[in-house]
Amino acid sequence: MTSDSTVSETLQVKRASERAAYDREAVNAVVDECFIGHVGTIREGLPLVIPMFCVRDGERLLMHGAPATGTVRRGEGTDVCVTMTILDGLVLARSAFHHSMNYRSTVVIGKAFEVSEEADKNRALEMFVGRLLPGRQAYLRPTSQKEIRGTQVLELSLEQSSAKVRTGPPIDEEEDYALDIWAGVVPIRSDFGEAIPDSRLTESTKLPAHVESLISAD
Amino acid sequence: MTSDSTVSETLQVKRASERAAYDREAVNAVVDECFIGHVGTIREGLPLVIPMFCVRDGERLLMHGAPATGTVRRGEGTDVCVTMTILDGLVLARSAFHHSMNYRSTVVIGKAFEVSEEADKNRALEMFVGRLLPGRQAYLRPTSQKEIRGTQVLELSLEQSSAKVRTGPPIDEEEDYALDIWAGVVPIRSDFGEAIPDSRLTESTKLPAHVESLISAD
Repeated sequence: MTSDSTVSETLQVKRASERAAYDREAVNAVVDECFIGHVGTIREGLPLVIPMFCVRDGERLLMHGAPATGTVRRGEGTDVCVTMTILDGLVLARSAFHHSMNYRSTVVIGKAFEVSEEADKNRALEMFVGRLLPGRQAYLRPTSQKEIRGTQVLELSLEQSSAKVRTGPPIDEEEDYALDIWAGVVPIRSDFGEAIPDSRLTESTKLPAHVESLISAD
Repeated sequence: MTSDSTVSETLQVKRASERAAYDREAVNAVVDECFIGHVGTIREGLPLVIPMFCVRDGERLLMHGAPATGTVRRGEGTDVCVTMTILDGLVLARSAFHHSMNYRSTVVIGKAFEVSEEADKNRALEMFVGRLLPGRQAYLRPTSQKEIRGTQVLELSLEQSSAKVRTGPPIDEEEDYALDIWAGVVPIRSDFGEAIPDSRLTESTKLPAHVESLISAD
């Protein structure tokens, strides 16, 4: 796999620059499809990476976490790097060296802040549910103030972000194309399986359309 | 999603400790299934997370990268945190608050070193190909010394690692179980699609068994 991008302060992709797509549209496309971000911070002088549920809200990334994780200091914000990766396929070349993966990934850097203003936080929390299951929020019992207080939401501007994409067939050494070696791409797919009902549903409870459409849309 | 684990120097999971599984077996199971690690380092005083292809070799994690990425200083090693996450399902509860995800994830911390000893590096490179496609290495043209030199392999001990797993149905507030609200789990599955042959295969080249079995095993 070509996992060779590095990000400087100016987010210039120093290597494999042909795969760098700086435009925001590419970033948005990845963020809108990949809902888990790997969030890097510095803790006690060491790097720490944790997975968080992420949702894009226009020009910012919202991250869902519990309080007391200590990852974000109030007020001044905390330096983070949020990376999202979608694997699209294995790229099988005629030599081991040119094996690769097709993928789309984004790197977002900047300072993360806690979303604390009440109306903004409520709206953010509804976006997490709506991101995965449009229509579900209105179907649920209302969220209590205690529950809202018990959840932490972080925000990070998408201003400093970049996308990197690899698509297409393997690129082999010219002389290797004559070899009788199978090369190509094996796609990787992800989908939703059949819903497993909770054993404690009431007798009258039916599978709602917003869950059914999630599974069949796939 | 409960994305609330933090890792101190002693890798004590401070929150959601019921989901922490410290034993190496749990770590190995995640590493052996999830081949992309999100590798966190500190660059110019800021956190940086990049995706890398990772393979377990006994007690160490091997990471595949190109040279000159600057992520690893020679000799003394570089502090890294490698996190791998496998999403198994959406957990739909009766309240927004108790929505969650089923997942398996590992966090490995420590100093990464470059694998430079020639025989060890050759073997490591073969493990990357063999990890995804057992039998493919012997099918390919031999790797040149130049190609071996042109690839960087990093190693990280699995000594300081932890796993965190969530499985099973939603856990709702006791009074919410009486509500006529569908709750349960929607599994997330990942598999391989039909192989796409490279347009420049020789006429006689057939799909080999090691690719076919990858797809059908799924």
